[in-house]
Amino acid sequence: MKRNVLIIGAGGVAQVVAHKCAQANDRLGELHIASRRVEKAEAIIAGVIDKGAMKVPGVFRAHAVDAMDTGAVAHLIRQTGCQIVINVGSAFVNMTVLEACIETGAAYLDTAIHEDPAKVCETPPWYGNYEWRRRDRCKAKGVTAILGIGFDPGVVNAWARVAEGMLDRIDSIDIVDINAGSHGRYFATNFDPEINFREFTGTVYSWQNGGWQSNSMFEVGQTWTLPVVGDQKAYLTGHDEVHSLSARYPQADVRFWMGFGDHYINVFTVLKNLGLLSEKPVMTAEGQEVVPLKVVKAVLPDPASLAPTYTGKTCIADVVRGVKDGKPVELTIYNVADHAEAYAETGAQGISYTAGVPPVVAALLIAEGVWDVGTMVNVEELDPRPFITLLNGMGLPSRIHDAAGDRPLAF
Amino acid sequence: MKRNVLIIGAGGVAQVVAHKCAQANDRLGELHIASRRVEKAEAIIAGVIDKGAMKVPGVFRAHAVDAMDTGAVAHLIRQTGCQIVINVGSAFVNMTVLEACIETGAAYLDTAIHEDPAKVCETPPWYGNYEWRRRDRCKAKGVTAILGIGFDPGVVNAWARVAEGMLDRIDSIDIVDINAGSHGRYFATNFDPEINFREFTGTVYSWQNGGWQSNSMFEVGQTWTLPVVGDQKAYLTGHDEVHSLSARYPQADVRFWMGFGDHYINVFTVLKNLGLLSEKPVMTAEGQEVVPLKVVKAVLPDPASLAPTYTGKTCIADVVRGVKDGKPVELTIYNVADHAEAYAETGAQGISYTAGVPPVVAALLIAEGVWDVGTMVNVEELDPRPFITLLNGMGLPSRIHDAAGDRPLAF
Repeated sequence: MKRNVLIIGAGGVAQVVAHKCAQANDRLGELHIASRRVEKAEAIIAGVIDKGAMKVPGVFRAHAVDAMDTGAVAHLIRQTGCQIVINVGSAFVNMTVLEACIETGAAYLDTAIHEDPAKVCETPPWYGNYEWRRRDRCKAKGVTAILGIGFDPGVVNAWARVAEGMLDRIDSIDIVDINAGSHGRYFATNFDPEINFREFTGTVYSWQNGGWQSNSMFEVGQTWTLPVVGDQKAYLTGHDEVHSLSARYPQADVRFWMGFGDHYINVFTVLKNLGLLSEKPVMTAEGQEVVPLKVVKAVLPDPASLAPTYTGKTCIADVVRGVKDGKPVELTIYNVADHAEAYAETGAQGISYTAGVPPVVAALLIAEGVWDVGTMVNVEELDPRPFITLLNGMGLPSRIHDAAGDRPLAF
Repeated sequence: MKRNVLIIGAGGVAQVVAHKCAQANDRLGELHIASRRVEKAEAIIAGVIDKGAMKVPGVFRAHAVDAMDTGAVAHLIRQTGCQIVINVGSAFVNMTVLEACIETGAAYLDTAIHEDPAKVCETPPWYGNYEWRRRDRCKAKGVTAILGIGFDPGVVNAWARVAEGMLDRIDSIDIVDINAGSHGRYFATNFDPEINFREFTGTVYSWQNGGWQSNSMFEVGQTWTLPVVGDQKAYLTGHDEVHSLSARYPQADVRFWMGFGDHYINVFTVLKNLGLLSEKPVMTAEGQEVVPLKVVKAVLPDPASLAPTYTGKTCIADVVRGVKDGKPVELTIYNVADHAEAYAETGAQGISYTAGVPPVVAALLIAEGVWDVGTMVNVEELDPRPFITLLNGMGLPSRIHDAAGDRPLAF
């Protein structure tokens, strides 16, 4: 059944979501996109039209909305008749948008965990602080809410579920996220610097030996050898999916590793040690109150501006160790994406592309009824096969590498 | 003849000037100190009284003044009956204070070249942009104005004049400024970060082969072996004294070298490349207009806060090469100062101490009539012997090192 889709947000990921929804609008209904500043949403629609991305003629309309206002979002959902909301706005608006979905009955999708602007890193499991507290209400109202359905979290959770089906026991899941691309600038973040840096200033939580382990950022590093991108140094990093996968696989070690070059680490370390990544205001000699992190954001390149000249590839992988028929097994399930190809198709770079395609696939599965589960779930709770099969055909093919060799992951 | 002294400014250097004037108040007259915020000036006087620094009972009074306002400064000079003004305020106020001295006939002393807040690095010779344009007026009115009478510029200019007297010809003057002390913080500047960074963001001008040579900061480095502090890496840096010494010694190469550790260079390079040292405002996502450099200043330690725990020594030297009786000669004239000793005596660290003692010595020489030349001069134009003799007894002894060995510089 066709369903109208409302996209919340107008950044790089929203741009990819818009293009992919347009390419599949024969299977979705009317498309809507809402942002605090309507002109950003309008620009995205103009890009979609320019690319000729709409598969069949149809509605694609821009709206202004304050996504921190549940009533305003609920009003927009009703007004547009949307039954699916893809929330790819700031991580600060997740709960207000989810409440609007619970109120209206629309399905809810997001790609990152909710954050409170005033709190940099909260007690694990992170999903327990905001999302899971609304699980019973989603279930009672039959509202489908799929949490963290980007790439990581998202696809990597589905891969863990695939590995679960291939093994008798999972002993460890190491998610490794490598961006081996180059933007050619002295320094830039691949998405909003404010959100990017917040990810690395708090405690690094990992799930090991049946409990939460705390480290600091860049404390634990390891070189991973991955397909296409080769040897890459990555560091133990706090990340959303660790907080749901550890609930399903409490016997396994669950770790997230993000690749960083020495240059990134150096710049980050200087800024952090000087206090320039602080979200707390300081006072200048002239008496002006300023949040240092917001000034750093202002001097850094706009992440969207990196896309036209971004080259190289990303590789995101689940390295899963476990046991099958009494023997140790290691599987690597992975995707390689290309920045220039992502730009050619959607006008956005590869990081936005990998995050933006999966929620559109999920929306299609909800529209088809396959994933319309009428409750709140994390991705590993859903059947991964239809999801990965659709993704394979929509620009993000999964591959698997194990003792039997390297091959597409297909069902 | 005793003369009343007005100190302009209330930073670390002003604090040293205040202590040293107090210690010599039997040879000076009434003492006055003026700052934009009178409480800063009052705090300095309180420190002077606490230390028992006043040699004989006398007046020491704090005033509020806007030093950018020539009329206000002239009024204060007249009101206090001051005949000597030691200007150790911000480099932005030099010309307004000098104008007040020309208007009132008071002698003028400063320790750094005038700067326009909007211009980071101007055409050489720098003194030609502001100071020397007022030379004729000083002469016509018989106003003594001694420019750049801190340590460097200042003492190092006097040393060049000493070398002039010892050689038949000077071929090169390399001024080397090493701070081998440690403040124990992750990163800090030794004086106002805004002024400190401005020194290193512009073109590095040196005088070589009879003309101006342009380099960028940290482009040309060299290891110098100096007394006490040993081997130290220093970098060709733009500095005031190069712009006057090259006028007196056009046949010689005149270069200034400042010591930097790799950590300082790394932090500076990151901040500069990100645009965080810019004096031009940027706009945050929230629409706030902010000058990045002022935010960097706000997060860095207050230079004054470094003094209590600062340890180690500074070494500033003139390495002069030339010819005497047909033979090549190399002289090193230098001073070694100690951060902890400076703090014990004046409550300020060694960098402020080396800059603050020389103008007080010059004030004494003006009061005695020795340096009361009734015109505008740079330090190398004055007889260096009485100056160095007094400095030797006031905490900053000069030494000389040449083929004949290492010994005090005395006349």
